[in-house]
Amino acid sequence: MRAYLSRRYRLSASHRLYRQGFSDEQNFAAYGKCANPHGHGHNYVVEVTVGGAVHPATGMVCDLGELDDCVRKEIVDRFDHTNLNLDPAFREVVPTTENFSIAIYDRLSSVFLAAKLIRVRVEETSNNSFEYAGKK
Amino acid sequence: MRAYLSRRYRLSASHRLYRQGFSDEQNFAAYGKCANPHGHGHNYVVEVTVGGAVHPATGMVCDLGELDDCVRKEIVDRFDHTNLNLDPAFREVVPTTENFSIAIYDRLSSVFLAAKLIRVRVEETSNNSFEYAGKK
Amino acid sequence: MRAYLSRRYRLSASHRLYRQGFSDEQNFAAYGKCANPHGHGHNYVVEVTVGGAVHPATGMVCDLGELDDCVRKEIVDRFDHTNLNLDPAFREVVPTTENFSIAIYDRLSSVFLAAKLIRVRVEETSNNSFEYAGKK
Amino acid sequence: MRAYLSRRYRLSASHRLYRQGFSDEQNFAAYGKCANPHGHGHNYVVEVTVGGAVHPATGMVCDLGELDDCVRKEIVDRFDHTNLNLDPAFREVVPTTENFSIAIYDRLSSVFLAAKLIRVRVEETSNNSFEYAGKK
Amino acid sequence: MRAYLSRRYRLSASHRLYRQGFSDEQNFAAYGKCANPHGHGHNYVVEVTVGGAVHPATGMVCDLGELDDCVRKEIVDRFDHTNLNLDPAFREVVPTTENFSIAIYDRLSSVFLAAKLIRVRVEETSNNSFEYAGKK
Amino acid sequence: MRAYLSRRYRLSASHRLYRQGFSDEQNFAAYGKCANPHGHGHNYVVEVTVGGAVHPATGMVCDLGELDDCVRKEIVDRFDHTNLNLDPAFREVVPTTENFSIAIYDRLSSVFLAAKLIRVRVEETSNNSFEYAGKK
Repeated sequence: MRAYLSRRYRLSASHRLYRQGFSDEQNFAAYGKCANPHGHGHNYVVEVTVGGAVHPATGMVCDLGELDDCVRKEIVDRFDHTNLNLDPAFREVVPTTENFSIAIYDRLSSVFLAAKLIRVRVEETSNNSFEYAGKK
Repeated sequence: MRAYLSRRYRLSASHRLYRQGFSDEQNFAAYGKCANPHGHGHNYVVEVTVGGAVHPATGMVCDLGELDDCVRKEIVDRFDHTNLNLDPAFREVVPTTENFSIAIYDRLSSVFLAAKLIRVRVEETSNNSFEYAGKK
Repeated sequence: MRAYLSRRYRLSASHRLYRQGFSDEQNFAAYGKCANPHGHGHNYVVEVTVGGAVHPATGMVCDLGELDDCVRKEIVDRFDHTNLNLDPAFREVVPTTENFSIAIYDRLSSVFLAAKLIRVRVEETSNNSFEYAGKK
Repeated sequence: MRAYLSRRYRLSASHRLYRQGFSDEQNFAAYGKCANPHGHGHNYVVEVTVGGAVHPATGMVCDLGELDDCVRKEIVDRFDHTNLNLDPAFREVVPTTENFSIAIYDRLSSVFLAAKLIRVRVEETSNNSFEYAGKK
Repeated sequence: MRAYLSRRYRLSASHRLYRQGFSDEQNFAAYGKCANPHGHGHNYVVEVTVGGAVHPATGMVCDLGELDDCVRKEIVDRFDHTNLNLDPAFREVVPTTENFSIAIYDRLSSVFLAAKLIRVRVEETSNNSFEYAGKK
Repeated sequence: MRAYLSRRYRLSASHRLYRQGFSDEQNFAAYGKCANPHGHGHNYVVEVTVGGAVHPATGMVCDLGELDDCVRKEIVDRFDHTNLNLDPAFREVVPTTENFSIAIYDRLSSVFLAAKLIRVRVEETSNNSFEYAGKK
């Protein structure tokens, strides 16, 4: 009797999309205005979905406070009000929202063990969202 | 050629999360402020997803009015503007939104037969949602 | 050069609309299903608007952290996850959202002094909102 | 390392649900007020989801500008501010939102090749949405 | 002690913006793609705001059920799932959302007397809204 | 017969709140985490409200395309996907959203003449918004 719980967290950060080995022309061809030299920013919404059996005593998939503590410590406190390009998670990869979703998923899947991490969805704007559910 | 139709219904209800066999300390440890003695409440959004072949004559998965009648009668009329703890559905289980999703799914799956019930998603707040898709 | 800042806070509570002097019939006539005996609940959104000159050094109407601390202490901590009918603010008046807006406005206007309180708007559901801007 | 990108597009159109071989009574039985003779309309939100490996150099599933150009040319420019009943896509099928989702999916799947088209979801109103993910 | 109550209603309708005395060129110059010959449509959100003293016995500005009955009968039942161009309200004026707001305001102000009608706001799309508050 | 038209525009930008004459301690005291050294960012929603008589021939307050052209050229093209701190508008003032609203209002009020500019509202996050309506 598996149920799923999805919880949304919000953080604001800046990023600039460009690849160090690329010329300016290549960066603009790949990223358009997202390659503008001084960066820009977003209000990111991070939706974390976990799943598992509903515990017969508590009626819950997992303790929501435990999930909150974990996501706040590992994700929100680390990335909120920062420049993503300067975070070690983006030292080798471009801070696209695809890579941001993967970074969040990988980090949570190794530390949150109270229920199964199903997927991470990151809304970059009200029109764009990205989703990652692990290697399959 | 299977398509899916999702329809959102809204209802307001109160609940208190606590387990009768638990001490007050255990209830607060499990449910935090949701165990406050006099209850609190939510505007629940219930999203019901059904799926099936698109009927070649009508172009529809099923008659939306029939789905509405069923969900209103079975779910909205029963739970809207009530205290969930007093409903027979929660006599033996705690009215968490996990259990509320399961109660809605089980009820609809036994009475709505015009298309296959795929899943029930219940938003408890704008940041929390729960999903149940049957025993699998 | 007056600007306005609006900030949204969220809280979940239950209430039952009924007046003690009224008969059951009178209460149902006045409040409909909101008079159901065991209460129901809502996710309330409280939007607080303050206004004033933009401070030339900081570029702000007021310190947002100060507003947050005040609203959290005076409003959110007090009413979140409670039954409004049991709060002293509603000992003599029915906990309609009109009266809830007035209670929030009156409380904030006496303690938040860093900018002028302009109005309080409370969304009871996604379709209903109430606003109060003081005696005029 | 497959990730998913969902992008929302908006268009406004009118339609009338009725089937030519049906009598008026049959049309009203099938479609209710959606069969009203002079049509009505909606603000449709079309969410297109594509998936694929995250390209190691760019960090992207595909070029978002390329997806935008394709959806705008094939879908938005064609259907926005039109009467769906008059479009060749609905010459033989009723312009229900089920059929609209299928028409969009089929069109995109044959022309957008930069990533795999996963599904098309069309919101007809804030309470109704429809989804199609191809023949399976 | 005046408070305000705002209530949202939803209706779907089609319209075409063109003026009979205008040439096609003039209509396209004035209305762009909104002048397309076969019309298009929207999900309109109509927000009605009324205000007045909070009644000391009931704690309400007015009976919400009474407002609902009035708006449903006068506005929703009349305009929902119709073609606005064919309604007598738009026989002499173009069915722009400015004129739709005025038509709704004028109709409600003459029949809803339980509280003062303050304004009518109509959202045409998620990005466009129009407001009318009577002759002043 | 004055009506109002509000139109929403979206742009993403980064900013850092700090004042050059302030010490680091003063900046953190004033702006909290918004003073983090490498900036952060937001998806800003800019809502522009204009008002005027409804033109009897067209039924419109003003030509929406003209408003769009003006706001896109003067505001969106200038600020979207940029770092606000580097814009000449913020050479002498801190790029708080209060000052951003004022900068937008002042710029539009001097160039958009087809209807009266009533106010500019900027949403910085889903919980924070700022409004400016000119010197009064």
